[in-house]
Amino acid sequence: MRALEIQNKFLLRLDKGEEIIQSLIEFADKQKIGFASVSGIGAARRVRLAIFDTKNKKYAERDFQGDLEIVSLLGNVTMADGMPRIHLHAAITGDDLNVHGGHLISATVSVTCELVLTASGEKVGRKKDGETGLMLISGD
Amino acid sequence: MRALEIQNKFLLRLDKGEEIIQSLIEFADKQKIGFASVSGIGAARRVRLAIFDTKNKKYAERDFQGDLEIVSLLGNVTMADGMPRIHLHAAITGDDLNVHGGHLISATVSVTCELVLTASGEKVGRKKDGETGLMLISGD
Amino acid sequence: MRALEIQNKFLLRLDKGEEIIQSLIEFADKQKIGFASVSGIGAARRVRLAIFDTKNKKYAERDFQGDLEIVSLLGNVTMADGMPRIHLHAAITGDDLNVHGGHLISATVSVTCELVLTASGEKVGRKKDGETGLMLISGD
Repeated sequence: MRALEIQNKFLLRLDKGEEIIQSLIEFADKQKIGFASVSGIGAARRVRLAIFDTKNKKYAERDFQGDLEIVSLLGNVTMADGMPRIHLHAAITGDDLNVHGGHLISATVSVTCELVLTASGEKVGRKKDGETGLMLISGD
Repeated sequence: MRALEIQNKFLLRLDKGEEIIQSLIEFADKQKIGFASVSGIGAARRVRLAIFDTKNKKYAERDFQGDLEIVSLLGNVTMADGMPRIHLHAAITGDDLNVHGGHLISATVSVTCELVLTASGEKVGRKKDGETGLMLISGD
Repeated sequence: MRALEIQNKFLLRLDKGEEIIQSLIEFADKQKIGFASVSGIGAARRVRLAIFDTKNKKYAERDFQGDLEIVSLLGNVTMADGMPRIHLHAAITGDDLNVHGGHLISATVSVTCELVLTASGEKVGRKKDGETGLMLISGD
């Protein structure tokens, strides 16, 4: 992965074989990013998406494989328990161009992935929500 | 809803039961936002999407209910007739992970919704388009 | 097309009949944009999307026509061989609200298209990837 700082922005190019969530964790940790919004596009060969089941309070996951375009990748980087926390939702498409989407669990880049992080000097934390068990942005 | 100002950015966390468009109108009005771009992700339990029918010059609407991930939320806040105007398009997914999308009429948050507004000091207005009746960004 | 400079941001309103990629090339060329991230929404009447086939190393394309909402448009403007290079992925929907998406080849605006470009003073280039023949963001 290559990172270029653009004012308060970072342009990240992820390369073939790199996993997006893990790459972002490592980058955010190294750069000590307290908060950043993330947007991007790319191509992947393996993607795991999920949807949160509010009744059973867990994610239902589904894997996708093949030539996949990442149509949109949106979300943010926060900090929880001293570690970067990546929250991304993705829309992907295969050769029928029908779009599937959800909470991004993992995605392995096939050709390239181009992400823009807009970082802030401030830190935004997360804490566990009593009702769902999910890590929600903290502060009231 | 909680709002955190990040430089010229606001990170908004919308909570369970909050309606996205109405929450943004109230926030933009209070903050006197003249223009902001908006992006975000989240989860909703009720969403109304629409597509504009250029022949009949009206929106055709459709409701979605259940556990819905908001895969992408993109658009902007402008001002028209002294009031904030929210223009968002949304992509959502249910438990089959198939994505539906369109012009966002309304969305009620189920678990959380995380939005980033990048505001500008300037004001951007809208005026009625003679052909379609839609409120388009003004200025020639 | 109308362009409004907002700090380091440009809000672009594309009008009926304008083609998105070509409009962005002309705008980026005139403004001498070396790098910009792009996001937007709108409505189109004709869209060509593609997915990259890594085996045959070429894009498979598909055309869409009719009343189409542009649910999301994400990507960037770079420079290659002295010319602006537009890399966008789009999600679109027709009257069934099912979303199709992929690499954007071209899109002709039907009613309006609202894009935000966040430009940088720096220039980001691209160079041909030996394996795929695609123009990837350069620099190691």
